[in-house]
Amino acid sequence: MPDKLSLRNIRLIVEYDGSAYHGWQSQKNTRQTIQEIIEKVLKGILQEEVSLFGSGRTDQGVHALAQVANFKTKSKISLSRLKLGLNSLLPKDIVITGIKEVPFDFHSQRSAKSKLYRYTILNRKFPSAFHYKYAWLYHIPLNLDLMKKEAIRLVGRHDFKSFKATRKDRKSTVRTIYELKIRKSGDFIYINIRGNGFVYNMVRSIVGTLVGIGSGKLSNIRRILLAKDRKGAGVTAPASGLCLMKVEY
Amino acid sequence: MPDKLSLRNIRLIVEYDGSAYHGWQSQKNTRQTIQEIIEKVLKGILQEEVSLFGSGRTDQGVHALAQVANFKTKSKISLSRLKLGLNSLLPKDIVITGIKEVPFDFHSQRSAKSKLYRYTILNRKFPSAFHYKYAWLYHIPLNLDLMKKEAIRLVGRHDFKSFKATRKDRKSTVRTIYELKIRKSGDFIYINIRGNGFVYNMVRSIVGTLVGIGSGKLSNIRRILLAKDRKGAGVTAPASGLCLMKVEY
Repeated sequence: MPDKLSLRNIRLIVEYDGSAYHGWQSQKNTRQTIQEIIEKVLKGILQEEVSLFGSGRTDQGVHALAQVANFKTKSKISLSRLKLGLNSLLPKDIVITGIKEVPFDFHSQRSAKSKLYRYTILNRKFPSAFHYKYAWLYHIPLNLDLMKKEAIRLVGRHDFKSFKATRKDRKSTVRTIYELKIRKSGDFIYINIRGNGFVYNMVRSIVGTLVGIGSGKLSNIRRILLAKDRKGAGVTAPASGLCLMKVEY
Repeated sequence: MPDKLSLRNIRLIVEYDGSAYHGWQSQKNTRQTIQEIIEKVLKGILQEEVSLFGSGRTDQGVHALAQVANFKTKSKISLSRLKLGLNSLLPKDIVITGIKEVPFDFHSQRSAKSKLYRYTILNRKFPSAFHYKYAWLYHIPLNLDLMKKEAIRLVGRHDFKSFKATRKDRKSTVRTIYELKIRKSGDFIYINIRGNGFVYNMVRSIVGTLVGIGSGKLSNIRRILLAKDRKGAGVTAPASGLCLMKVEY
């Protein structure tokens, strides 16, 4: 094993259309994951096995405008050549938009301070030929004022157990949401959520709950939050509407 | 044949991602065209053969936000049911966004007064995971001021022979461009061209020529225009960047 001094720590910014992949990193080894594809191309270029660490998993069908991932290598290749090589060899729906050498102790997941996700809803009766992979088509007109009013109550440090997909682990479900903004543009509704971390399916459960509120099926998000019971919250919004926009360090 | 009075003339607004199709209407019968697919679904719903007339052909890989097409039918089906049925049965990348009953003599192509096309260029060194089917990736930085200055000279009534793909017909190549606007947003450059009609590949040849000017490979678009010779103009820009935005009547 090479010593620390001879290893470079390279950070990638990765943009991907998640439609065709089994998420960033799969639990079981079923379909190809984005992480595996990049590792394979890196191996080909660097002639060396590398392990790529992402800032976190994104589920099957979830997209990213700026996923962050890092790997260590003893290769001396220039960063501009490596970026060019990766983008030539990767599938067209995975693009390296940024590349940088970072301090040895930088870790995409452990060093992350906050993440920004955007969820897109297409709120009309007919679909879109261009956005069907990137937005949740929701037929019932949503009351945006009501959604905004309730959304505020999620901002801050809370136990988000009500918004966690049922899993057997007993890890803490306390997280902090720094920002939750809802914006309409034409028939599209964008929900931006920035937090220090998210429990499994949290963003999609929050979106499903907010849509439940906007359509009059649910009310009082504070009560839902305090109940700490997933059954009280709304549906899990489809993966396709979700996009990882930014990871802050 | 039913008489005019018993026939309804229905106008559709069609949005499509042209990536997977052989254009709106094919010359030869090779791959499936968007027109054929809609006709087939219409036949299934209306239980009647219909002929769908588009405002014009779009080439393989070209997109549309609002192609206009009309057909005549003796069916009494409600328009909202027909729209819902079409959008349920059509592939996800073809969507009917509007439907209306129009006067019997309305014809999508012959009644059209003008068309607006938008061409999208991604002007940077690395590709986009989301836009690779919808934009021309052009590496060399383009001089927008120069492009705008030269573009103005194409506005008005001209013989656009220099911008016509070589074909054997001897039809007139005189057309009027009402508007030619170039706009930058981030790394994207949008070229909007509105005219009373376009000769074959005209928009894509104009874009290729403007890009030639912006990259310093070509100059003086007025001389190119007056030469009436396709060889003097720039390359034909790729189909994927082109989108039919609007047809005016």
